[in-house]
Amino acid sequence: MIDLIVLGAAAGGGFPQWNSNAPACRRARADDPAAPSRTQASIAVSGDGAHWFVVNASPDLRAQIGQTPALHPRHGLRSTPIAGVILTGGEVDTVTGLLTLRERQPFTLLATPPVLDLLDANPIFEALDRSIVPRVPLALDQPFALALPDGTPAGLTITPFAVPGKVPLYAESGPDPAAIVENGETIGLAMTDGVRHAYFIPGCARMTGPLRARLRGADLVFFDGTLWTDDEMLRAGVGQKTGQRMGHMSVSGDGGTIDAFADLDVRRKVLIHINNSNPLLLADSPERQVAHQAGWEVSFDGMRITT
Amino acid sequence: MIDLIVLGAAAGGGFPQWNSNAPACRRARADDPAAPSRTQASIAVSGDGAHWFVVNASPDLRAQIGQTPALHPRHGLRSTPIAGVILTGGEVDTVTGLLTLRERQPFTLLATPPVLDLLDANPIFEALDRSIVPRVPLALDQPFALALPDGTPAGLTITPFAVPGKVPLYAESGPDPAAIVENGETIGLAMTDGVRHAYFIPGCARMTGPLRARLRGADLVFFDGTLWTDDEMLRAGVGQKTGQRMGHMSVSGDGGTIDAFADLDVRRKVLIHINNSNPLLLADSPERQVAHQAGWEVSFDGMRITT
Repeated sequence: MIDLIVLGAAAGGGFPQWNSNAPACRRARADDPAAPSRTQASIAVSGDGAHWFVVNASPDLRAQIGQTPALHPRHGLRSTPIAGVILTGGEVDTVTGLLTLRERQPFTLLATPPVLDLLDANPIFEALDRSIVPRVPLALDQPFALALPDGTPAGLTITPFAVPGKVPLYAESGPDPAAIVENGETIGLAMTDGVRHAYFIPGCARMTGPLRARLRGADLVFFDGTLWTDDEMLRAGVGQKTGQRMGHMSVSGDGGTIDAFADLDVRRKVLIHINNSNPLLLADSPERQVAHQAGWEVSFDGMRITT
Repeated sequence: MIDLIVLGAAAGGGFPQWNSNAPACRRARADDPAAPSRTQASIAVSGDGAHWFVVNASPDLRAQIGQTPALHPRHGLRSTPIAGVILTGGEVDTVTGLLTLRERQPFTLLATPPVLDLLDANPIFEALDRSIVPRVPLALDQPFALALPDGTPAGLTITPFAVPGKVPLYAESGPDPAAIVENGETIGLAMTDGVRHAYFIPGCARMTGPLRARLRGADLVFFDGTLWTDDEMLRAGVGQKTGQRMGHMSVSGDGGTIDAFADLDVRRKVLIHINNSNPLLLADSPERQVAHQAGWEVSFDGMRITT
């Protein structure tokens, strides 16, 4: 069994974004049922429905745990069903929630070496005592059997793999700070119980041949739903950057996500990490219809998929 | 006018704390009306009811803004009524929320040099572009007239002053890591519109003569309500540290906060930064009665005081 809960479906900033007065964010603030609020992207995954691994620690993690009974402590005075945290990148919206998980609670922190380097470079993350929360490097393309803090197998094996992406904004430097790289700075995650195969890829700058081959025939794929069109933030007047500049391919258009997945025979396709500028967030948008007709679901906070 | 909104009333970890299964946290999770949830300590203060300064950027800041209509954007596509953020320390629970305020939105970040040094030492805070969010050092005991980002006076003057405290846990080092110091690492904040005098002191290791003199006759004081008794976390089996070890004086007992304020003639006294182990959080606790009878209010998320 792969049991999966969407803790947050939105991209960095969430929906609504704190400083956005754009129409969609106003609808979310007004509790419009067609524009439900979404926190920042994260999932929890379990092989037994009892012990969970949080994939990406969003800034909203404290609220996300509060809203998710499966993640509430159940034993003793201090405990957690969260056995570990896996990071697919070092962006603010994937690591900030680690600061919520202090309080001397054992769990395992798993990330690739470039992401662990980013944490090492920020002493604030020493709030997680390394003797209690070990930092375990993940090697690209090496299957890694998840275990509970006591060593018991968790029933899931993950395989991290590099996807095209960019370094976090706060770590940009050098002559080409926005270069798209594929070095493990941004990863996708394959998850399997030995039978089913699920993927979590919240950020991806472009589809590649090897990625296409990897995903073909998968049972479940969560994929980068940041932007509907590459220039939507510019056109809406809410930002200066294209999706490509931010390291995200767009959902629509030639070479977009819908296009790229058309012949991949993935059983269940779910968009996640959806920016507040993306009309997919609105249940009554024509873009939502287009995505649905192409076989895509739009994730929402609390969505649960068991496969 | 000093207009003040409590964004969060709880100490670090909030109430309920993510990994606490103690009875009080279970009551909060069960929506017991006598144990309402509280987010991590922060206030917003305004001299005109329209432009706000957030004092301490808690990890819950995104949710706190969402719950506070006064802090919602009102103009254009991107804007905020938040003119600045003032930090009284460099703890995880006072700085993490800065990472929520990215998105190229101008405001001013004000803190003492030791706290700015802690931010400087953590490149993740470069997510706030210094050309858009200037970092302004506050000098101890120097009145500082708050201004809006366009330079307009905000109608409030703050004076930061050192209070006994300790360095953040993640920055502890040396032979006496928990030493109580009074060097500006932890500050209190005096706030005035020229007529009224309010104070915000969410962490204080002990009452001193100069602090007593400063607070005498104040209109409003928010004060460290972390623990009811110094050893309550040890006795409850939920922690190894006393309040003194964490840099917080306790509310009750000889030399405690109630005792220390007994003859200070403060018009309105409000406890804030209340730990989830503190029975003051429970409306039906005898300790709450004792505090009320001594003239203290217990702050809650959304509490608004205009003085």
